Amino acid sequence: MSQHKIFRQFFDKVSCTYTYLLADLTNKVAILIDTCQDCVQRELKTIEELKFEKIFLLSTHIHADHITGNALIKEHLGQTRSKSVISKYYEQAKADEKVGEEDSLSVGAFKLNFLHTPGHTSGCLCIVDHENRRVFTGDTLLIRGCGRTDFQGGSSEKLYDSVHEKLFKLPPDYTVYPAHDYNGKTASSIGEEIEFNPRLSKSKAEFVDIMSKLNLAYPKLIDVAVPQNLNCGYADKLTNGKSNGNHAP
Amino acid sequence: MSQHKIFRQFFDKVSCTYTYLLADLTNKVAILIDTCQDCVQRELKTIEELKFEKIFLLSTHIHADHITGNALIKEHLGQTRSKSVISKYYEQAKADEKVGEEDSLSVGAFKLNFLHTPGHTSGCLCIVDHENRRVFTGDTLLIRGCGRTDFQGGSSEKLYDSVHEKLFKLPPDYTVYPAHDYNGKTASSIGEEIEFNPRLSKSKAEFVDIMSKLNLAYPKLIDVAVPQNLNCGYADKLTNGKSNGNHAP
Repeated sequence: MSQHKIFRQFFDKVSCTYTYLLADLTNKVAILIDTCQDCVQRELKTIEELKFEKIFLLSTHIHADHITGNALIKEHLGQTRSKSVISKYYEQAKADEKVGEEDSLSVGAFKLNFLHTPGHTSGCLCIVDHENRRVFTGDTLLIRGCGRTDFQGGSSEKLYDSVHEKLFKLPPDYTVYPAHDYNGKTASSIGEEIEFNPRLSKSKAEFVDIMSKLNLAYPKLIDVAVPQNLNCGYADKLTNGKSNGNHAP
Repeated sequence: MSQHKIFRQFFDKVSCTYTYLLADLTNKVAILIDTCQDCVQRELKTIEELKFEKIFLLSTHIHADHITGNALIKEHLGQTRSKSVISKYYEQAKADEKVGEEDSLSVGAFKLNFLHTPGHTSGCLCIVDHENRRVFTGDTLLIRGCGRTDFQGGSSEKLYDSVHEKLFKLPPDYTVYPAHDYNGKTASSIGEEIEFNPRLSKSKAEFVDIMSKLNLAYPKLIDVAVPQNLNCGYADKLTNGKSNGNHAP
């Protein structure tokens, strides 16, 4: 194949999560953003077919609605072929590498930057790919929506500031790739969200009021997902076992 | 917004159909490929937000599993703002314009070409966007699969020839955007399908044998969807009524 770089979006129909693959086919390295435990076989099949020698497993945040697939992928590929990366703004989170706003990550032909965007959770990161004019916004900014702010150190005020002071300062043509969509939309743009986001185009006071009245149900998986995701997707039983032996905090 | 062209993929969770939007924001014109009746409100909202003055409604083929949204979109936008386009290789199909391999369609900054790829149905078209190195393959070529060949003039032999003689002759880096995926994958490439498609990487004889043994259920919606889709999505009751009065064959 003559192709050099590919970009792919994957969808988990159960949790409506998007997983993203950024792959440098020449150098045989790839990045996966926000994997799902239930979809690991699909992603491993792609890794096998395209013969990646090393995979970087990035998370935009500690998810509460699904378990990351990072542990299973690391189990399968081994420590030398896989590296998990998590926000340094979660004190308790474990991964092979922790990153913050001052860091960048170069993987083959890709260079990614990070924005710390607290609000949905305290440690949320948005991942910016300036060269390809796109940003992976996790649950901080969804298409015509945003993540809830009522757990994991969430704060409506902080989310509003993160979006307005950081995401909405990106060029308006940057494509927005969220961690979820529940209506079959796959992408948006910064410009569209500035203009049409029904929550975040409002004033901060209106936004905080909207968020305070959402009355959302307690997330079904949160009590399982958050502790496990803080541990890179490893279940407690593995944490002290050999499977997690070379999994550095 | 400073952006000029956008490309968006939409997903219908019921029929697992992908609808594609190619939009020229400067000239306020857009193309929608393979709309779904059940998702029309979502697409109309996008059309309204981005203020498109004219929309071209293309179909890769006469779908048997869902009803096109083209009629409802035309009803909403009116004849001057919308134009339906269908394959000329379906004698019975009605649309504002019928196109074949010798035609191209220029809509703002986009120029699309067509490949006649019979096999899933007799009149299937694949839509090629050479400038952006992508092809919309309908049900002719799916990600690691292909459409069934047992109705609507389908033929396994013809599908194999269409894929090998036309689609697989495209450059290997061209992105493949199918009409469906049932496993959360959103795109592939010509090169990947040449190498990894479990059916179409086989010999023609093996492919025909595989297809003859699929034993698929009769499509639930086919008896409603096909006649209605041959009529641009208009139900029979509208065909002779005023709603369809200016809908040319």
